[in-house]
Amino acid sequence: MTSDIVTAAMLAIGDELLSGRTKDRNIAYLADLLTVAGIELKEVRIVGDEQADIVDALNALRARYDYVFTSGGIGPTHDDITADAVAAAFEVSIDHDPRAMKLLSDNYASRDIEFTEARKRMARIPDGADLIDNPVSVAPGFRLDNVHVMAGVPSIFQAMLDSVLPTLRTGTKILALSVDSPFPEGTIGAPLGVIQKAHPETAIGSYPRFDGKTYSTQIVVRSKDQHKAQTALDAVHAMLDELSNG
Amino acid sequence: MTSDIVTAAMLAIGDELLSGRTKDRNIAYLADLLTVAGIELKEVRIVGDEQADIVDALNALRARYDYVFTSGGIGPTHDDITADAVAAAFEVSIDHDPRAMKLLSDNYASRDIEFTEARKRMARIPDGADLIDNPVSVAPGFRLDNVHVMAGVPSIFQAMLDSVLPTLRTGTKILALSVDSPFPEGTIGAPLGVIQKAHPETAIGSYPRFDGKTYSTQIVVRSKDQHKAQTALDAVHAMLDELSNG
Repeated sequence: MTSDIVTAAMLAIGDELLSGRTKDRNIAYLADLLTVAGIELKEVRIVGDEQADIVDALNALRARYDYVFTSGGIGPTHDDITADAVAAAFEVSIDHDPRAMKLLSDNYASRDIEFTEARKRMARIPDGADLIDNPVSVAPGFRLDNVHVMAGVPSIFQAMLDSVLPTLRTGTKILALSVDSPFPEGTIGAPLGVIQKAHPETAIGSYPRFDGKTYSTQIVVRSKDQHKAQTALDAVHAMLDELSNG
Repeated sequence: MTSDIVTAAMLAIGDELLSGRTKDRNIAYLADLLTVAGIELKEVRIVGDEQADIVDALNALRARYDYVFTSGGIGPTHDDITADAVAAAFEVSIDHDPRAMKLLSDNYASRDIEFTEARKRMARIPDGADLIDNPVSVAPGFRLDNVHVMAGVPSIFQAMLDSVLPTLRTGTKILALSVDSPFPEGTIGAPLGVIQKAHPETAIGSYPRFDGKTYSTQIVVRSKDQHKAQTALDAVHAMLDELSNG
């Protein structure tokens, strides 16, 4: 089976995600969107607002995957250090970007809001980066090589992703077919392993559910080939039928 | 200021977390619990069900932090490979553990359920590990050195964590004081940066809120020293009062 595989990683940045103060909502959103687009999210990391940690994680991820998406740390306050950390990771300079300065300056002028030094921080963009449009609150994200730097506020993260998505190379979409099994994993585990071995070009996942009293399982068959996914799913159905009647 | 700092990382394991099929609920739970206990969660990684990825992440995290907590991949099916990956990371052998076999065997016998080969997979424990009690569904987690391996099902993850927590060394708790600012980050950014510089033994975070129309900010002052946290918070209140009256 020949198919294009395009991989991605996410780096969520912010002390508040690690202290429990803020529950991340961007990881699951990105995971859904990339899966639909045919891009495989392979790894996620969450780090705090410390430059060395951001640089280390970013350099590891951008070397390993086709795309990296970051969230958080591009606002106007002293703890927003993502842009500087990205510049450090790429070893490029960073300064107030004329394009971003104009966007922000025009916006604040039109709203009669002072363009403070803090707000000018949001125009700090690493040298060589393209801006990512922010239709919600103007302050742009940016793309440098394969790294897309976006806001942490979910509505802005999502809006930025909308404009980024059409620019990405996408791979063959992975088809996922699922079936609910009334049997717990311990019952279906062995026969499901046999089915997995017999259908090597599919990935069969088994997800336990526990309602506080009884266990059941959702079985998901993934493949880039519809026929192979369906054939493996048929085998799963046959196995479940046999268990029900056995 | 002298204080004990105890650090931790989490490794969440499972293809379903990266495909968007399952929304992780364990990261935020662990973050909350560790913060309350005085342990600093410094990094989180999510990887799929691939041994090399689990081994790489685990070896990076266990070398760097005092504790590592993993979730997921210890069930009875072929895609549950966490125990084997942990054994590979530590370069120790893995086999059916007599203690775990007895726990599971007794439990299934008492419930008149067949102790299948698949269920015996859940007794595979790396050599030298201690078992972690599972009051929900018996199949144990385990601890090897500073790595705690736990289930992905949230109710079981939480129950295992309950029994692990009293065994951990904890550090000085970080106090967090917060105040809601009616001003957006762009307005308070510069004076807040000045306050941060004047109070170096606190960490002042600023968290934007956007209700679709207007921006406000929550400001959080963190410190291991209550007096220093309060003094910094007083300075934030004074700054906000000045902006309101100015």
